[in-house]
Amino acid sequence: MKIIVDAMSGDKAPQEIVSGTLAAIKLLGVKAVLCGKEEEILPLLEKIPKPVIDEYLEIVNASQVIEMEDDPANAIRSKKDSSMTVALELLRDGAGDAMVSAGNTGALLTGATLIVKRINGIRRAALAPVIPNPKGGFVLIDAGANAQCTVEYLVQFAYMGSYYASDIFDLESARIGLLNIGTEATKGTELQLETYKILESASSAGRLNFVGNVEAKEAMNGACDVLVADGFTGNIVLKALEGTSAFLMGEIKTMFSNNIKTKLSALLVKKNISAIKDRLNPDAVGGTALLGISKPVIKAHGSSNAQAITNAIRQAARAVKADIASRLYESVEYMKF
Amino acid sequence: MKIIVDAMSGDKAPQEIVSGTLAAIKLLGVKAVLCGKEEEILPLLEKIPKPVIDEYLEIVNASQVIEMEDDPANAIRSKKDSSMTVALELLRDGAGDAMVSAGNTGALLTGATLIVKRINGIRRAALAPVIPNPKGGFVLIDAGANAQCTVEYLVQFAYMGSYYASDIFDLESARIGLLNIGTEATKGTELQLETYKILESASSAGRLNFVGNVEAKEAMNGACDVLVADGFTGNIVLKALEGTSAFLMGEIKTMFSNNIKTKLSALLVKKNISAIKDRLNPDAVGGTALLGISKPVIKAHGSSNAQAITNAIRQAARAVKADIASRLYESVEYMKF
Repeated sequence: MKIIVDAMSGDKAPQEIVSGTLAAIKLLGVKAVLCGKEEEILPLLEKIPKPVIDEYLEIVNASQVIEMEDDPANAIRSKKDSSMTVALELLRDGAGDAMVSAGNTGALLTGATLIVKRINGIRRAALAPVIPNPKGGFVLIDAGANAQCTVEYLVQFAYMGSYYASDIFDLESARIGLLNIGTEATKGTELQLETYKILESASSAGRLNFVGNVEAKEAMNGACDVLVADGFTGNIVLKALEGTSAFLMGEIKTMFSNNIKTKLSALLVKKNISAIKDRLNPDAVGGTALLGISKPVIKAHGSSNAQAITNAIRQAARAVKADIASRLYESVEYMKF
Repeated sequence: MKIIVDAMSGDKAPQEIVSGTLAAIKLLGVKAVLCGKEEEILPLLEKIPKPVIDEYLEIVNASQVIEMEDDPANAIRSKKDSSMTVALELLRDGAGDAMVSAGNTGALLTGATLIVKRINGIRRAALAPVIPNPKGGFVLIDAGANAQCTVEYLVQFAYMGSYYASDIFDLESARIGLLNIGTEATKGTELQLETYKILESASSAGRLNFVGNVEAKEAMNGACDVLVADGFTGNIVLKALEGTSAFLMGEIKTMFSNNIKTKLSALLVKKNISAIKDRLNPDAVGGTALLGISKPVIKAHGSSNAQAITNAIRQAARAVKADIASRLYESVEYMKF
């Protein structure tokens, strides 16, 4: 298996991206293509034995970099020789099985859609991060790729999320919840009311395991394996979660530095607190899948360190094995209307 | 000042509602009207000296109770002699200055709108809880009263939130943020794009202090004093916040009970952890204002204990003093289009 890595995107590129890729080669036995400025990548490989490089690593030069603040559509159009664009072209052309980037989310979405293309029949690609909860976690789809959604998009997200969650959580049939402000079928806006009906009939037909409307609070408590949302609301959930975590962890940090007693207390649980932080740490979790693209594309967090990149590559390798695209292709007729 | 209290609504009614009201009389010197089943309320007043009751307390009998699971519109229509309905009628008729209820949120909204009426020109009443953050907190408006919103509703929420937050946080001009998935003016759906333009021009005209689009994460970090949202998205934020807090506090509790070392650590910070929980505790915060109603109506949390009711009554008394309704009435011409 060969994973194509955008070596130049992200806050810590290329240093941490290259380190994470090298660790993934060692840990997972995958091959990798590093895509980016050769003059910056090669010095980072000086200590790697030549036979390892020869067998496991390719470097493909790309002279430009898409920055976090670049306008997504413009960047993909104007920076034809960017590491992200070239990496996506390599994926399209079969030079590797999956692609990982820690770059500009909008550009990656636009680029993946224009270059690698969506699965035939899928209307929109969606961002599908795994959100932690006491039961392990749930897939949130869409977490922000599509601010304005139709009923059809949401139904397709439900199917994509179902295949993906069943795979990553090893479930026979992932429980699909529709994000809403109450559990009754009458809750929400037109979008939720209509989507509810279609998901319910898909569930009756045995094609999906729809558990009904789910509130964000209940999803955080394990009520579903997939939480379906329009990208606007999904992104709001994601950011509210990040904000609340940051606020609470900040309060706890302040509390521990209060006085001698609390400082002593902090010493006793230092490692355990770190473990809790890690559960919510995007670097530890790895990447967010872009579902709906014809080949696996994984978005790593913009601040990814080497560990995060290794995890994102692991996720990419898993996505290749699961081959969700083929399974979606088989059932796409149910998702069109 | 006299506060009308729905004594029968909420999980802990009437016991805790009556206790909280008695505490408020003692602490704040307000008068109160307890509305509900006399045969249940009177035994709770046995130990109160008669002169205190005579001067500070009225009991108005109401034979029915609106339950949490009742359909809001039906309940208000069919239970004409419910404690909530009677309390709202007393408010309408001037028997008190403000009303507090820990009951069914939907029924309270419907009842307040039908009986007490909205401020002339205001299209929709909104729920406006205070959300904690490191700077103290921000007002979220609307937190769930109106799932489907228009641009006009959102602009009115901004004005109502501005007056309210300036009052409760003692600010000259509250910073108004529009909940969105990014800070650029081009972010969001049609609703946000249009609302942004109108809030911006209101800001240029000096009528509002609009700070632009704000992500939930940034609001949780103090970026604004008022976060304007449609009721669907606002409610999602509220529930995501509750869910994340519950998850994290659960993780921390589990962590502390891990072994002898962590248990010792827990003993050292027990009080401090409680203080953090209290900051996020709806009972400690008190109530959520229903803004847009012609007289102050405060929704206390359904699980309110005596302390929460006392706090909600304090908030009601403050709302009476601030007289937001009159101030809104003066500027309502700017809010119509």
